[in-house]
Amino acid sequence: MSDARTNPELATRLSIELPSWATSVLGGVGPLAGDDRRMALVLRLADAAATNTHGGPFAAAIFRADGGGLLSAGVNMVLASRAPVAHAEIVAIALAGTRLDTYDLAREGPIELVTSCEPCAMCMGSLPWAGITRLVIGARDGDARAVGFDEGDKRRDWAARLQARGIDVVRDVRRAEAAAILRRYAERGGLIYNGRTPAERAGA
Amino acid sequence: MSDARTNPELATRLSIELPSWATSVLGGVGPLAGDDRRMALVLRLADAAATNTHGGPFAAAIFRADGGGLLSAGVNMVLASRAPVAHAEIVAIALAGTRLDTYDLAREGPIELVTSCEPCAMCMGSLPWAGITRLVIGARDGDARAVGFDEGDKRRDWAARLQARGIDVVRDVRRAEAAAILRRYAERGGLIYNGRTPAERAGA
Repeated sequence: MSDARTNPELATRLSIELPSWATSVLGGVGPLAGDDRRMALVLRLADAAATNTHGGPFAAAIFRADGGGLLSAGVNMVLASRAPVAHAEIVAIALAGTRLDTYDLAREGPIELVTSCEPCAMCMGSLPWAGITRLVIGARDGDARAVGFDEGDKRRDWAARLQARGIDVVRDVRRAEAAAILRRYAERGGLIYNGRTPAERAGA
Repeated sequence: MSDARTNPELATRLSIELPSWATSVLGGVGPLAGDDRRMALVLRLADAAATNTHGGPFAAAIFRADGGGLLSAGVNMVLASRAPVAHAEIVAIALAGTRLDTYDLAREGPIELVTSCEPCAMCMGSLPWAGITRLVIGARDGDARAVGFDEGDKRRDWAARLQARGIDVVRDVRRAEAAAILRRYAERGGLIYNGRTPAERAGA
């Protein structure tokens, strides 16, 4: 355990950077009106994520509700960043804070999160902290589970609970296209990583 | 909306660094056997967090189950990092990945998360993805809510769901001390930030 005794070896800095294949998709994107156009951009990002090796085939973006300006975007960076929490939604939320220079993302007005797939239990739990006022979803939870991704243990009434917090939920926006991205990723043999149970670890 | 048209202004890099008041607590810490000693370290971090202005009075650390070596630690960095997702547990998990150079934190053996307060809904959802096999908690959910912190919409059966995934849960370790840190923070007028509802935003 010498590694634990020598604390200079403890990591103290976390750095996550959007890859160039993601920023190139975002280049020159102006304000986008309507869920369909916003989701189309997010699915271009998810499709790019599916053909790269930074993480799973998931993407998300945050827009200003008023005017449709793009505030931030994220892709799943779990593999590249070695952070199992670096899901697309988490990355997008964190980068919006950097962009606005505040943790209070809705300070300048309402903001909307558009995500290629229904958020996992962790990402769902992050929405109230981020000041999101509207959640727009592409693929369903079952679409992700169908190709092997664990989505975690969500409340059955998660949508109602978000609504009670003033977060509107819109589903199935370009769902067929979003689900097809997940299927193509799996069919190409993309890595489906999940938290492993102790039994799985023992058998690994 | 000129800011949204000029995408060079989009943030593409997220960087979070543990402050010196946190790393100084961690300096020279060797393997720690037993929940009580591990929680004592985490509460020293939480107490330091309560007297600084980087975020809420919360701390967490990840230990190797075998030997008790410290793998990583985190404090709430929401204010300093402008990332509303930078809770202590999320920071500790991400830094463990950096330390081990893999998203699969349990690859070298079982790991345990020790946290000063019961995780919020987001952090609870992150545990399966991080490969945590044991969760050790100080203050209860109600202790955080009592001073005004929103803990999110958790499942009532969250502990059973974690157990079903092979994640053991231990509660009330140094709870009185952990809860006292939260109360002192509130009594000193520490900022209690939560996601704001649209009504609260309108009235702000």
